[in-house]
Amino acid sequence: MRIGLIGTGNVATILGRKITAAGHEVVQVYGRSAIHAQQLAAELQAAYTTDMDHLDPHADLYIIAVADAAIASVAASLPLQDKLVVHTAGSVSKEVLKVASTRYGIFYPLQSLRKEMEQLPDIPLLIDANTPDDLALLRDLALSLSTQVGVASDEQRLKLHVAAVMVSNFTNHLYTLAERYCQAEGADFSLLHPLIVQVAERLQYMSPQDAQTGPAIRYDTPTIEKHMALLEQHGEMKELYAWFTKSIQKQAASGEL
Amino acid sequence: MRIGLIGTGNVATILGRKITAAGHEVVQVYGRSAIHAQQLAAELQAAYTTDMDHLDPHADLYIIAVADAAIASVAASLPLQDKLVVHTAGSVSKEVLKVASTRYGIFYPLQSLRKEMEQLPDIPLLIDANTPDDLALLRDLALSLSTQVGVASDEQRLKLHVAAVMVSNFTNHLYTLAERYCQAEGADFSLLHPLIVQVAERLQYMSPQDAQTGPAIRYDTPTIEKHMALLEQHGEMKELYAWFTKSIQKQAASGEL
Repeated sequence: MRIGLIGTGNVATILGRKITAAGHEVVQVYGRSAIHAQQLAAELQAAYTTDMDHLDPHADLYIIAVADAAIASVAASLPLQDKLVVHTAGSVSKEVLKVASTRYGIFYPLQSLRKEMEQLPDIPLLIDANTPDDLALLRDLALSLSTQVGVASDEQRLKLHVAAVMVSNFTNHLYTLAERYCQAEGADFSLLHPLIVQVAERLQYMSPQDAQTGPAIRYDTPTIEKHMALLEQHGEMKELYAWFTKSIQKQAASGEL
Repeated sequence: MRIGLIGTGNVATILGRKITAAGHEVVQVYGRSAIHAQQLAAELQAAYTTDMDHLDPHADLYIIAVADAAIASVAASLPLQDKLVVHTAGSVSKEVLKVASTRYGIFYPLQSLRKEMEQLPDIPLLIDANTPDDLALLRDLALSLSTQVGVASDEQRLKLHVAAVMVSNFTNHLYTLAERYCQAEGADFSLLHPLIVQVAERLQYMSPQDAQTGPAIRYDTPTIEKHMALLEQHGEMKELYAWFTKSIQKQAASGEL
């Protein structure tokens, strides 16, 4: 497929790399910043532009990978008529693309993507479109990039996005808080890496509820009290410690939330 | 080394497997339950007993891997005199072992261990002892089981244990809450597995603070509001969403907590 890529951020960059690695062609990169557009275009061996009026009209698909809040205004300035256009956001309706074209849909990567990644990760792709033909076309593209492809409505995608924020952004913030605590207390955070990876990887063969370990699930009150005392000078961590301990024990006691 | 293993739970089982896999000998397993002691002893090709008075007196090292709250009472009933004895707990002082022997220390696996594990994970080991000679002896044993070995005082170990609880037990509970949310809303939690693994693995080459993505760090208020509205029926998740969003933005704004 010949693809026009609108955006130069983390999602545009990683999707662009996946797309070219799978043998498709990115014909043009659009970006507001000439430097960023030129840089990504050079990497993907594509043309670039900073002017919407100079968008290459001959692509098969236009992917809008810009900040959520900018999607509607970018769509409004796109002169696509009946070309297929998608956006890549978890929490924005596909209907905002109606103004750009009669053919529109979704190409949502369920991953936390950073330009700096050394290797391209596995990326589950959730797709949607306003016609069955375009859904089939997007499915073919998605399957050429990923082994995990699903169709998800606006509402389903929004729900998965909420869950994704919980298990990636919030989890990562726990890592950040723990790292700062270790730095403040002279402990070596990198000793925790094997533990962190193991807890994530065992989800492949064990539900998280069955995998829970630690002082809270053991109702080990002396240890919990020692830990809370140690966190006296770390207000946010102390709040979290109390909250999670209570929630883990509530879950264990009831079997449901 | 010839080792006496006291306990039959998750830590005793996984350490026993690591120890025999490294070519050492578990001479005897002690457990209160004959079934559990016999089962683990059979797996490790060791003898077993349920009677402290029948503890094999000829081991080089005795490892107490029982519930934190039981360590002191187990130590008090051990007739070891001048044999080396260690426990495996993050948050219990090594001094509780004084009653059992003149030679005592720590052998703390910084991992979340479950008997059901199909593969033995990498296990960072934190050690301590009341004499330099025994510290050297424990270091040799630890280095035969793990590439990550550190010496940690009671206080340092307690601090790392708190951090470990944050990045493993609390993280795992986030996974549990997200899985239950997906089940309640008809979404496929397994689509999130690649995301979860990627967020954990990238710590090898990126600090969590630099790796943060998502609506909170982007100050993407429309998305945050959509997510909060969706969580109206999920009280605990809504609380967490608000807490983490605020904490992530506070961290981003100040560069410190």
